[in-house]
Amino acid sequence: MISQHYKDMLQQKSVIREMNAKAGALAEKIGKDKIFNYSLGNPSVPAPDCVNEVMKDILENTDPLSLHGYSESHGILEVRAAVAAYLKKKSSLPYTADHVFMASGAAGAIAHAVRAVVCPGEEIITFAPYFPEYGPYVRETGAVLKVVPPDTESFQINFEAFEETISEKTAAVLINSPNNPSGIVYSTQTIDRLAQILTQAGEKYGHSIYLISDEPYREIVFEGTDAPFISAHYKNTLMCYSFSKSISLPGERIGYVAVNPAADEAETIIHMCTQISRGIGHNCPASLIQLTVAKVLDQTADLSVYEQNSRILYRELTRLGFSVVKPGGTFYMFPKAPEEDAMAFCQKALNYGLVLVPGDSFGAPGFFRIAYCVPTETVERSIPQFEKLAADYGLI
Amino acid sequence: MISQHYKDMLQQKSVIREMNAKAGALAEKIGKDKIFNYSLGNPSVPAPDCVNEVMKDILENTDPLSLHGYSESHGILEVRAAVAAYLKKKSSLPYTADHVFMASGAAGAIAHAVRAVVCPGEEIITFAPYFPEYGPYVRETGAVLKVVPPDTESFQINFEAFEETISEKTAAVLINSPNNPSGIVYSTQTIDRLAQILTQAGEKYGHSIYLISDEPYREIVFEGTDAPFISAHYKNTLMCYSFSKSISLPGERIGYVAVNPAADEAETIIHMCTQISRGIGHNCPASLIQLTVAKVLDQTADLSVYEQNSRILYRELTRLGFSVVKPGGTFYMFPKAPEEDAMAFCQKALNYGLVLVPGDSFGAPGFFRIAYCVPTETVERSIPQFEKLAADYGLI
Repeated sequence: MISQHYKDMLQQKSVIREMNAKAGALAEKIGKDKIFNYSLGNPSVPAPDCVNEVMKDILENTDPLSLHGYSESHGILEVRAAVAAYLKKKSSLPYTADHVFMASGAAGAIAHAVRAVVCPGEEIITFAPYFPEYGPYVRETGAVLKVVPPDTESFQINFEAFEETISEKTAAVLINSPNNPSGIVYSTQTIDRLAQILTQAGEKYGHSIYLISDEPYREIVFEGTDAPFISAHYKNTLMCYSFSKSISLPGERIGYVAVNPAADEAETIIHMCTQISRGIGHNCPASLIQLTVAKVLDQTADLSVYEQNSRILYRELTRLGFSVVKPGGTFYMFPKAPEEDAMAFCQKALNYGLVLVPGDSFGAPGFFRIAYCVPTETVERSIPQFEKLAADYGLI
Repeated sequence: MISQHYKDMLQQKSVIREMNAKAGALAEKIGKDKIFNYSLGNPSVPAPDCVNEVMKDILENTDPLSLHGYSESHGILEVRAAVAAYLKKKSSLPYTADHVFMASGAAGAIAHAVRAVVCPGEEIITFAPYFPEYGPYVRETGAVLKVVPPDTESFQINFEAFEETISEKTAAVLINSPNNPSGIVYSTQTIDRLAQILTQAGEKYGHSIYLISDEPYREIVFEGTDAPFISAHYKNTLMCYSFSKSISLPGERIGYVAVNPAADEAETIIHMCTQISRGIGHNCPASLIQLTVAKVLDQTADLSVYEQNSRILYRELTRLGFSVVKPGGTFYMFPKAPEEDAMAFCQKALNYGLVLVPGDSFGAPGFFRIAYCVPTETVERSIPQFEKLAADYGLI
């Protein structure tokens, strides 16, 4: 029988996509140059030239049968070894190829990590504000997602609420730092306290609690921000990485799971990922893309535009009376809406051509997300519109 | 808690991989030129030159931000439209982009198709001999795989056993023609009879029974073989296609689900695939690979070597007294082992450097698979070894 479950999911509209659709409709009506589309987290800077150069070089200098052939189900060994060497250098943790599983972007990495360390019926805790897709990512494995409400002063972890949520049913904690939607980076102090609680709870309940660390924004950290290498602070960490944001390759679907070599059953977890793939139809990212990223691991797109946009928006929005926690990375910020109903606020913002996303679906009602992965010129032109919006609310 | 389920799966060895590993070990011992590795279904001819040319052209002439950017979750629209136009021309069925979902190879396509039309607890019927991965593919969705025993005279469908297996619990039937491991192509008569039974059972049980048609070998059909376009014979068909075999791109993980436009809820099924992706972490094949295949839809690798190998092996093996059903396509054949225990036979074949795979895991004990995707020169050199093996069994 046709699946009612997936049919029903079609009715659950994504508010991000809805706002983006509104932007499109509005652009048709009043002109594209009057629309400031801050709804989508889509990189606005191209991949660096070296990506295409490396691809062309591989195409010209590799035997096509081997280039386009099956890779082993963990990913191509030389690619895994290159990722491990890169992470080892970055962290001093003794990663080897045995600790790396190549995945189709962060979504693919999380799909494997969750299935490896959380059984159906067990609980995964995440912290608001959080990426709304964590809902289906976790639910479809049969596990239960528990959301800890936000610390709205800092968007670091609300530890009081966390300690009330953690229980013997907790199998894993899922974090995302630098964070979508807040732009906040969890500090060393935050990560150490989290690690301490997880260690103590593991001892109390008699089983390890894994930390699944979703890090697609790991390379987008602004100057002066304390950005610890999370896996180095808690041994039972599965890092889920994607090349989508740092090197602007979201469509090429490439990332990995890297398990801290000291984690319980670290190598077994990587082997288990190959079995998980069989059921979910994954079978590795594309060979050409795997081989490409292995050669550009230390490269990024020109990420400076995000920091520049962040500075301008933070300076101007605070000047206009908005309450904003200053981002430490990513290309998002998450100000407080000047009225309780953030959806109503975002609806009003549309009158000024500003396309923003209400925070409700991120688990933080009353806030709104600005995805400032847009040209700086667009940011600058949008400031007078924010000014009118602020005046509308009597902030200035 | 770490998943015992996936940990246990690690213990279930694939006999194909085991035989391949034995080939490797034997090659080390007695020399690679004395080994005839017929264990793996890995294309032996390279992708045609046009593939790499198209890739380089795309890399040189597409804006990198758009090239490597997110595609919509159904796949890139122009790619889906191109696939639809190709299928329409081939079949006269009125495919449009709305009937095509881009997937990561056949494994990805089947992962989506099964979840769309079969609910947990329901049954999927397949026909032996069948690809062993159908086991985990189906089981991990929560559905139950029922295997109909083979018609060992022809390797067409054993309809008597099928009619005993089909019931009100049957949600879908999963077929693979041209077939791995038999090399047999289901005839027009077979497909029409299958369609008739499915239609009648659908009426009897009050719900449509979908046909999931796994067709990675669709383009590898030998001269004179009756090879119907299956979707045209039964309206509720979901075709799962992969470019792995026809154009030798197995590592690039690219294929699609195409629903017969006349199927019940055809367009809804394609939309549902996007929801299925969210839970299994799929999010489209790589953009560059999608754009590439759209431009080479009517191209194939030089597939003639498979037909040539098939002719030589069929002629020689029958001459040597083996009982073989003549393949109509693919790069497999599936002779009867000259002793009841096909594993023991394959073990003995290793003494002659012949690496074959016993049929037990394909649901057909007593037979063995020859994957003749190897250079013709290798096939020719292997014949004297088959001759010694036949003599060992007193066949000649």
